[in-house]
Amino acid sequence: MCGTEACLIKCSPVPSAIPETRENVTLINWDTLINLDQGDPVMYESYWRKMGNRCDITFSGYQSLSYFANAKNLCWFLEPKLEEEIKRLHNVVGNAIVDDHYVVVGTGSSQLIQAALYALSPTDQPEPISVVSAAPFYSSYPEVTDFVRSGLYKWAGDARNFEKDGPYIEFITSPNNPDGVTREPVVNGDQGILIHDLAYYWPQYTAITSPAKYDVMLFTVSKCTGHAGSRIGWALVRDKEVARKMTKFMEISTIGVSKEAQLRAAKILGVISDSCLDPTLENFFEYSQSHMTKRWQKLREVVKGSDLFTLQKYPLQYCHFTRDFYESHPAFAWLMCKGSEDDLEKLLKGHKIQTRSGRKFGSDPKCVRISMLSRDEDFNIFLQRLMSIQGLTNGN
Amino acid sequence: MCGTEACLIKCSPVPSAIPETRENVTLINWDTLINLDQGDPVMYESYWRKMGNRCDITFSGYQSLSYFANAKNLCWFLEPKLEEEIKRLHNVVGNAIVDDHYVVVGTGSSQLIQAALYALSPTDQPEPISVVSAAPFYSSYPEVTDFVRSGLYKWAGDARNFEKDGPYIEFITSPNNPDGVTREPVVNGDQGILIHDLAYYWPQYTAITSPAKYDVMLFTVSKCTGHAGSRIGWALVRDKEVARKMTKFMEISTIGVSKEAQLRAAKILGVISDSCLDPTLENFFEYSQSHMTKRWQKLREVVKGSDLFTLQKYPLQYCHFTRDFYESHPAFAWLMCKGSEDDLEKLLKGHKIQTRSGRKFGSDPKCVRISMLSRDEDFNIFLQRLMSIQGLTNGN
Repeated sequence: MCGTEACLIKCSPVPSAIPETRENVTLINWDTLINLDQGDPVMYESYWRKMGNRCDITFSGYQSLSYFANAKNLCWFLEPKLEEEIKRLHNVVGNAIVDDHYVVVGTGSSQLIQAALYALSPTDQPEPISVVSAAPFYSSYPEVTDFVRSGLYKWAGDARNFEKDGPYIEFITSPNNPDGVTREPVVNGDQGILIHDLAYYWPQYTAITSPAKYDVMLFTVSKCTGHAGSRIGWALVRDKEVARKMTKFMEISTIGVSKEAQLRAAKILGVISDSCLDPTLENFFEYSQSHMTKRWQKLREVVKGSDLFTLQKYPLQYCHFTRDFYESHPAFAWLMCKGSEDDLEKLLKGHKIQTRSGRKFGSDPKCVRISMLSRDEDFNIFLQRLMSIQGLTNGN
Repeated sequence: MCGTEACLIKCSPVPSAIPETRENVTLINWDTLINLDQGDPVMYESYWRKMGNRCDITFSGYQSLSYFANAKNLCWFLEPKLEEEIKRLHNVVGNAIVDDHYVVVGTGSSQLIQAALYALSPTDQPEPISVVSAAPFYSSYPEVTDFVRSGLYKWAGDARNFEKDGPYIEFITSPNNPDGVTREPVVNGDQGILIHDLAYYWPQYTAITSPAKYDVMLFTVSKCTGHAGSRIGWALVRDKEVARKMTKFMEISTIGVSKEAQLRAAKILGVISDSCLDPTLENFFEYSQSHMTKRWQKLREVVKGSDLFTLQKYPLQYCHFTRDFYESHPAFAWLMCKGSEDDLEKLLKGHKIQTRSGRKFGSDPKCVRISMLSRDEDFNIFLQRLMSIQGLTNGN
């Protein structure tokens, strides 16, 4: 695995590691960093290529000029077709209750996180409300909460260490990012306001044990279908005033959400629902489950018996969608270092694997988060490099 | 103009006043409110319909999954094709210098306003930096600046009344929203940081007197092409660190900008440039200038000699794009009440014309801002109602 070695692999159209291209093959040099930091869901490209032109959508020049999608709706910039397909997919999958909930669309779930904080924070308090989540927590929560130093809300760290009286906001990310674990509220104070971030509550990642039914639930197209470039997320919100304030946040910050992205997302969600109901189509979730299962098997095989690494374990649970037992296969691997190495991100980067340190999740730098949603080529090189590190540290 | 009257007009596909539709004609009841509040640029639909399928763009299911557009670019989520067409259009029109400037794309210019505030605010000061603009100022500036009560920046009102020492940020909106006037900085303090909002610096609205060349310049597709539903804006930024911090703002708040919207905007901007260079195409700016000129002529005709109303006047200026003299025909009319009526918005609303009060622009409630970019049907009804009000107040 020295700097001059290289491997020839099948060409990927936009390789994340930006290697040189030579005709139909791509030359990935061993010096090329494999980026498994962001969780870029390009693994899903293979499914969408197989679907051919079924998801094609064409926009003419005269379409969607207006700011408005439906002036009569509380969320006036939400395309009716997207609302319909969001509700349909939740009903098909059974992962969330949509009745008696308002749908608020956002520019990805990052914007919805801010909208929820804005809508749920008291405006009559002298101090900003504390925002917490149990470590390891999604690394964006502290940054999204604090980046403009809001006087409405303020990041207060690990929910397990939170002991202040009074109101607080707690993010419950389930399955959790980064470690894939199913989560419940941790603080359980009597003035807690809960935001359920359910970005990964889809059958390819975890068993659908029951339909989620919470006050504020966040979802994103990025992790459901793989279309991260569209920047479409949605919230299911029980209370009308909260939904109205979240809509107001979108109005002030971006005057709504791209119509093209919404209409394309509607089309894609529709095809996913169709694929679950029409046996002549390849079921999206079965295809993705199968991919995730294989990747996790390979990764566990590499890590098994390792002196250096260990992986988070998950229980087998009954999935009401597949009507079968399923072990979680999260979108990220939460890899822990058993050895004396204190900085696992640094160790892996030294072997050209870019991951995200546990430190960024309010946790131990002996852990890293690794995207499991890269293209096959990158995933396979990652496994080879991981094997190689173990070989080196085992003295082989 | 009583409640039972109605007029039959040509059908508009998504009428903003939501009237009843009867076959090919639309029945607009005199009770229907004409909404000229937001500046929804649906007037441009007629041009884009004439262009047929020249702007069609099709997305396949497997495209644009990644968060990234160009990992090597400072603004890593900016589609290279959009950057190219933005620069090309500025060069064709001659309204801004693009050399030695970074392009940062945003979800409309609202997000870019926040990104610029974030990037330009000092982080080492005990107090938030003051943000000002000369009244009448764009009504969103106070709200966008203060809605999450940032500790970095704070709205400080009319630039003309600003007398504090030390650093401040001033928005220079030119042509100005709401009144269409060409603007220069007002405070001229030695620690001023300037943001030039040039959303309306396009030939259909005003003469292009010289290419703008400022540190931070903001533009938006909404007011240039009419595609407000896409939510695409861009900044031209001279300083690399400022561009990097603005990009960081987009990354934290929305992890980039919709790829579909960017690619469609690139296509549309490209067609506009083509239309300026290819004599077989109908020149977009000539078409739009002609429309704006006719509307302003009609409006001035109605207001001329009125005892009740008066309109902002504009000088004739030489336009380097059209190589001819041009009087500004702004996207908004700034209508002033000469009579004893103190609340012009209320007066017009009583006659079913929804406008925006001067109060919201830090100015006089005897003024209102009126969108000049509605569909023809709405614009004509607006003129009829305005005539009718004048008739009533003249005792006819």
